[in-house]
Amino acid sequence: MGSNTFGSIFRLTTFGESHGPAIGAVIDGCPAGLHISSEEVDHDLQLRQPGNNPYTSPRSEQDKCEILSGIFDGKTTGAPIGILIRNKDADSSKYEPIKDLLRPGHANYTYLQKYGIFDYRGGGRSSARETAARVAAGAIAKKFLAHFNIELCAFVAEIGGIAIPEPDLNHVALLKQKTYANPIFCPDEKTAAIMIKKIEEAKEEGDSLGGILQGVASHLPPGLGDPVYGKLEALLASAMLSLPATKGFEIGSGFAAARMKGSEHNDAFDLDDSGRITTSTNFAGGTLGGISTGLPLSFRVAFKPTSSIKKEQSTLSLSGEKRPFNLPPGSRHDPCVAIRAVPIIEAMMALVLADAILLNRCAKAT
Amino acid sequence: MGSNTFGSIFRLTTFGESHGPAIGAVIDGCPAGLHISSEEVDHDLQLRQPGNNPYTSPRSEQDKCEILSGIFDGKTTGAPIGILIRNKDADSSKYEPIKDLLRPGHANYTYLQKYGIFDYRGGGRSSARETAARVAAGAIAKKFLAHFNIELCAFVAEIGGIAIPEPDLNHVALLKQKTYANPIFCPDEKTAAIMIKKIEEAKEEGDSLGGILQGVASHLPPGLGDPVYGKLEALLASAMLSLPATKGFEIGSGFAAARMKGSEHNDAFDLDDSGRITTSTNFAGGTLGGISTGLPLSFRVAFKPTSSIKKEQSTLSLSGEKRPFNLPPGSRHDPCVAIRAVPIIEAMMALVLADAILLNRCAKAT
Amino acid sequence: MGSNTFGSIFRLTTFGESHGPAIGAVIDGCPAGLHISSEEVDHDLQLRQPGNNPYTSPRSEQDKCEILSGIFDGKTTGAPIGILIRNKDADSSKYEPIKDLLRPGHANYTYLQKYGIFDYRGGGRSSARETAARVAAGAIAKKFLAHFNIELCAFVAEIGGIAIPEPDLNHVALLKQKTYANPIFCPDEKTAAIMIKKIEEAKEEGDSLGGILQGVASHLPPGLGDPVYGKLEALLASAMLSLPATKGFEIGSGFAAARMKGSEHNDAFDLDDSGRITTSTNFAGGTLGGISTGLPLSFRVAFKPTSSIKKEQSTLSLSGEKRPFNLPPGSRHDPCVAIRAVPIIEAMMALVLADAILLNRCAKAT
Amino acid sequence: MGSNTFGSIFRLTTFGESHGPAIGAVIDGCPAGLHISSEEVDHDLQLRQPGNNPYTSPRSEQDKCEILSGIFDGKTTGAPIGILIRNKDADSSKYEPIKDLLRPGHANYTYLQKYGIFDYRGGGRSSARETAARVAAGAIAKKFLAHFNIELCAFVAEIGGIAIPEPDLNHVALLKQKTYANPIFCPDEKTAAIMIKKIEEAKEEGDSLGGILQGVASHLPPGLGDPVYGKLEALLASAMLSLPATKGFEIGSGFAAARMKGSEHNDAFDLDDSGRITTSTNFAGGTLGGISTGLPLSFRVAFKPTSSIKKEQSTLSLSGEKRPFNLPPGSRHDPCVAIRAVPIIEAMMALVLADAILLNRCAKAT
Repeated sequence: MGSNTFGSIFRLTTFGESHGPAIGAVIDGCPAGLHISSEEVDHDLQLRQPGNNPYTSPRSEQDKCEILSGIFDGKTTGAPIGILIRNKDADSSKYEPIKDLLRPGHANYTYLQKYGIFDYRGGGRSSARETAARVAAGAIAKKFLAHFNIELCAFVAEIGGIAIPEPDLNHVALLKQKTYANPIFCPDEKTAAIMIKKIEEAKEEGDSLGGILQGVASHLPPGLGDPVYGKLEALLASAMLSLPATKGFEIGSGFAAARMKGSEHNDAFDLDDSGRITTSTNFAGGTLGGISTGLPLSFRVAFKPTSSIKKEQSTLSLSGEKRPFNLPPGSRHDPCVAIRAVPIIEAMMALVLADAILLNRCAKAT
Repeated sequence: MGSNTFGSIFRLTTFGESHGPAIGAVIDGCPAGLHISSEEVDHDLQLRQPGNNPYTSPRSEQDKCEILSGIFDGKTTGAPIGILIRNKDADSSKYEPIKDLLRPGHANYTYLQKYGIFDYRGGGRSSARETAARVAAGAIAKKFLAHFNIELCAFVAEIGGIAIPEPDLNHVALLKQKTYANPIFCPDEKTAAIMIKKIEEAKEEGDSLGGILQGVASHLPPGLGDPVYGKLEALLASAMLSLPATKGFEIGSGFAAARMKGSEHNDAFDLDDSGRITTSTNFAGGTLGGISTGLPLSFRVAFKPTSSIKKEQSTLSLSGEKRPFNLPPGSRHDPCVAIRAVPIIEAMMALVLADAILLNRCAKAT
Repeated sequence: MGSNTFGSIFRLTTFGESHGPAIGAVIDGCPAGLHISSEEVDHDLQLRQPGNNPYTSPRSEQDKCEILSGIFDGKTTGAPIGILIRNKDADSSKYEPIKDLLRPGHANYTYLQKYGIFDYRGGGRSSARETAARVAAGAIAKKFLAHFNIELCAFVAEIGGIAIPEPDLNHVALLKQKTYANPIFCPDEKTAAIMIKKIEEAKEEGDSLGGILQGVASHLPPGLGDPVYGKLEALLASAMLSLPATKGFEIGSGFAAARMKGSEHNDAFDLDDSGRITTSTNFAGGTLGGISTGLPLSFRVAFKPTSSIKKEQSTLSLSGEKRPFNLPPGSRHDPCVAIRAVPIIEAMMALVLADAILLNRCAKAT
Repeated sequence: MGSNTFGSIFRLTTFGESHGPAIGAVIDGCPAGLHISSEEVDHDLQLRQPGNNPYTSPRSEQDKCEILSGIFDGKTTGAPIGILIRNKDADSSKYEPIKDLLRPGHANYTYLQKYGIFDYRGGGRSSARETAARVAAGAIAKKFLAHFNIELCAFVAEIGGIAIPEPDLNHVALLKQKTYANPIFCPDEKTAAIMIKKIEEAKEEGDSLGGILQGVASHLPPGLGDPVYGKLEALLASAMLSLPATKGFEIGSGFAAARMKGSEHNDAFDLDDSGRITTSTNFAGGTLGGISTGLPLSFRVAFKPTSSIKKEQSTLSLSGEKRPFNLPPGSRHDPCVAIRAVPIIEAMMALVLADAILLNRCAKAT
């Protein structure tokens, strides 16, 4: 598969660099008959670029998408949906002074090794700017999921070592409401207040924080995901680790499972109040054998602290000389990159699930 | 991509159920000119089935592969390599008593939901038996990697909450030697002794333990992995989460990164003693922007405790009646499934890297 | 996509050389719930190896398949179906004398150029032997198509310049019956008699003939095939040109369309006797814009004359010396390779259609 | 693979409808380091839209591309190349009167069957307008091929039954020069004059003509194309049949091979004047076993007569009533659609070859 394409039936291809004229998304395989407006896409794009709070990067592009194809009379036609998002607030000149330095925690060294050339302006293709295209595509995937009453949400679960209490996955809509009411996308207000303090401290020190996001989905039909290499968690893991700054993925009990016993960890099958099959616990996180059980899907994603910090660092020039590294004056950066990733995690989850629903239509002969 | 196929250029397709006549692997895209013998494949297969120690399942199949194609005069020809491994020790009759019960922690419920039919004998396609085909393919991938002097190794890093000290990633060959000298594939003998005690305790209780495996590779050429959706860590994450019983993946600092500050986490570029570019720390784990830096690759995989335990559990019948669940008498099972996964992790890592090396040949025009 | 894999959802991967121990097929993505027996697969394999008539190669392997996976209780489970066909009648020693010669019309020159190594025994991977794996997979695809009452058939339409009269595509079942009742798979008995004479003449001269096969299918649901690069005719063309010895593909009017006018060629939409939409003619051949109309699908495939002939030819040795080329004594070969391709064309058509039916399930949102 | 994506490593994804705001192309997998300017792309786009001669559609969009990504400092960076071509001359209102009629020879019936919705304006996604995106991508592929001194050319070989004499494939550059000097892209001036007369006659009658295009390439490295399903001719056939209005594909001797004998058809290996391996004839058309020999590649593509004609036709309304069908006044259409396909065939050939060159880098281990 091309390295800029994600998915199997419901497929996203993205293009565009941080400081080029535009970034774009092509969604191929979106089924016909979905009602979509560019306003709906813009709504999700705006979640990605708060700008109006001090905890994220001040870049204020006010992204607006132009839908170029695939929609007719307000509905998807089955044709590929081309979406363009122009880059407006992109002053590349400030990257000139650091263009010959290896940026700590960034990709310019490896891109140069691989390609022999690098669009250093704003990180080029390796910039988180690319994720705007994912969010646009995710908005369309969500419209498809809505047909099946699937609810999904991502939120901040931990920042700087401060974690929220176990969230209630049986009320995803409520969780989502609380998340988007909070300036740092954390559904637990009290914990969020402490996190914000931590963020402010790091910001003052010219430093940055890591964090953990959680993604959840409810009302999934059982049967999503495919055996062996197409396991739902394998697809989600690949989706999440394809995001800039991610360092880990876990589903259900995750790494904690390594410290549990089988007798604790096995979720016992049982009937719920309405007589449907459920399990008493959900350490599995919503899948068994890589296929959705119908119980809430739950996974977590680890983000490293933002690599762009104001503190002076030590590095090398391209020609191998020791140099101090300072961010160019006026550089924008997030004290905690995880926060802005919330709508992106949601979008990637939506893309994985939309694809899985379509693939699942091919499981049985009739 | 078909759900039973892994990889892009160097591609593995597997087939076969736990209790069917055989499992098989087809490796397509293996370059021509590699020396391969079936003995080399059998050697890796034997690592997967220790049998000769009490800490893993007593199933003793003595897997031997039959190479059906793709090798001529002892060398790969560029044609697909078909490998067959017969199932010998597969008594399916003991699965009869539990065929109408939902197996806790297993996939029969979800397979039935998805396909309406399930080969319940020994877990069918969802069995870890499928991983023998991966190990066979991995043996071939390793031969390719050897051309580039790449060294790789997987080992037990934690079992039942007991972790080894930080391993030295600069001597992967030594690490590998220690690993395979130890009955539970743990390179630290002292820690291994404590782990073994834990395992024996769990076994006596009819219970099981989870664990964490680590995979490492050194002497990687820089430039492996592709931007955006083909990031090396995304491919590895997908590979690892496609393994039965895995719950999480992390690269480099992983989830610990979420508790670090940018100033701590950014690996500072520096020169090593021979004047080559390196970094003072390696929290990144060997990639930047999803592309290998040339520094040691390091990742970890979380395994849940084995789902098959001797302790009685509670479950439902297919028709929804409450039932106790007991393993059929004479069932084989591992007290800690993570241990046997060591050669499998190594094989999947080899497959990912072989594919990345081939893809990387297409990065530059000339 | 790997070069040994065909299809998108319903996918076939083949392996095995002409004179290796076996050839094999892995069918991934076959939906669950189809009744399949190995006898059904063997039936189609036998069509491919008449042996009992003088017009095709006397190799009499009596192919029998071993189904290794994917079937449980006589039904497909959704797991990949592994099929093995052992090579029995493969005496490689006679290829020794010609192993250092460039074989006219064969692939040893190009394989050597590409891979630097070639399994010359019986043509290795480039042998038509590989098509047995396709026929086995096609037998399974046909079982799926039968659920939708689709009828399909391939037959000899022209040999040595002798063509059958326009066949009646409205009775595919009858056409199929006539085809398989004829020793050279030609549904028109009178024309077949003339063709047979031609074949016998060529055989006596130690020469060979080319031919044209036609593939037809009726009762196709409208909507199969995808716009742009997934057009049904593009998939069929690719399938047909992937067969050894094919030189051309045409759908409907084909190359004759180049000599027609628009007013003649446009099929006028009309209602049939039962009030359903049809067209008065079917120059289109069953698709419009690459998507099936529901009218009979019809295409033709050109085969070159068999490259292996008894007549002496002129060639070069691998080291570039002029040499005469004679087939080794006792070599088997077909005077007209097109004949044996009939069940293969049928199999490839079935694979393309099965895949298209599954993909079409993803066209609409609900 | 998504139905709007073509290729394996060097991959093209297109989007956009005839009368939407724009069409676009994303080229993923283009290697880094190629010099590309938007002028070069525009040059090829202009070949597709002569407008200045009376033999093709008078639509005069003067396509200009906007390159949105993937180029930095005038060179490709390895990132996906996004290209946008705005639709300017697109008056959709004239399609209103025919939107409820089944268009003879067009795709609105099948799109409606498949998707339940159709963007009828100018044929929507099924329009030949989409091929502008292919031509843009082909311009980039050609730059890559130029690194290897490959010369390629497509031209008109037959229109309305009038064929050119056998072209000399040993001087492709000259052939190309003659082709583009001729208003109907026919390298043989005398034959072209007769063709033009035929075209004018058809035009006067409100009718249209079919034709045959030929594609050729020289200086191909041997080894391009992959065995079995990735044969070079299979890829070319798929590429060509994915073009609107195509009905057939043949390589080398093509359908004529069906009337030849083996002793005539087998190309005898020989040495050329400089002592290199060649063949005395080239009926094969440049491949053996699906892999390039290094001899000139040659294939032909059949085009049906343009479906849009001025003559009144008979059709049905969407609700099944008999209706006359007349093109809306002011409709643009080509009397012979094959002519404008010349640069498109060239582009598709370039895409196939660029992909094959990259894939071939993975054939050998070292």
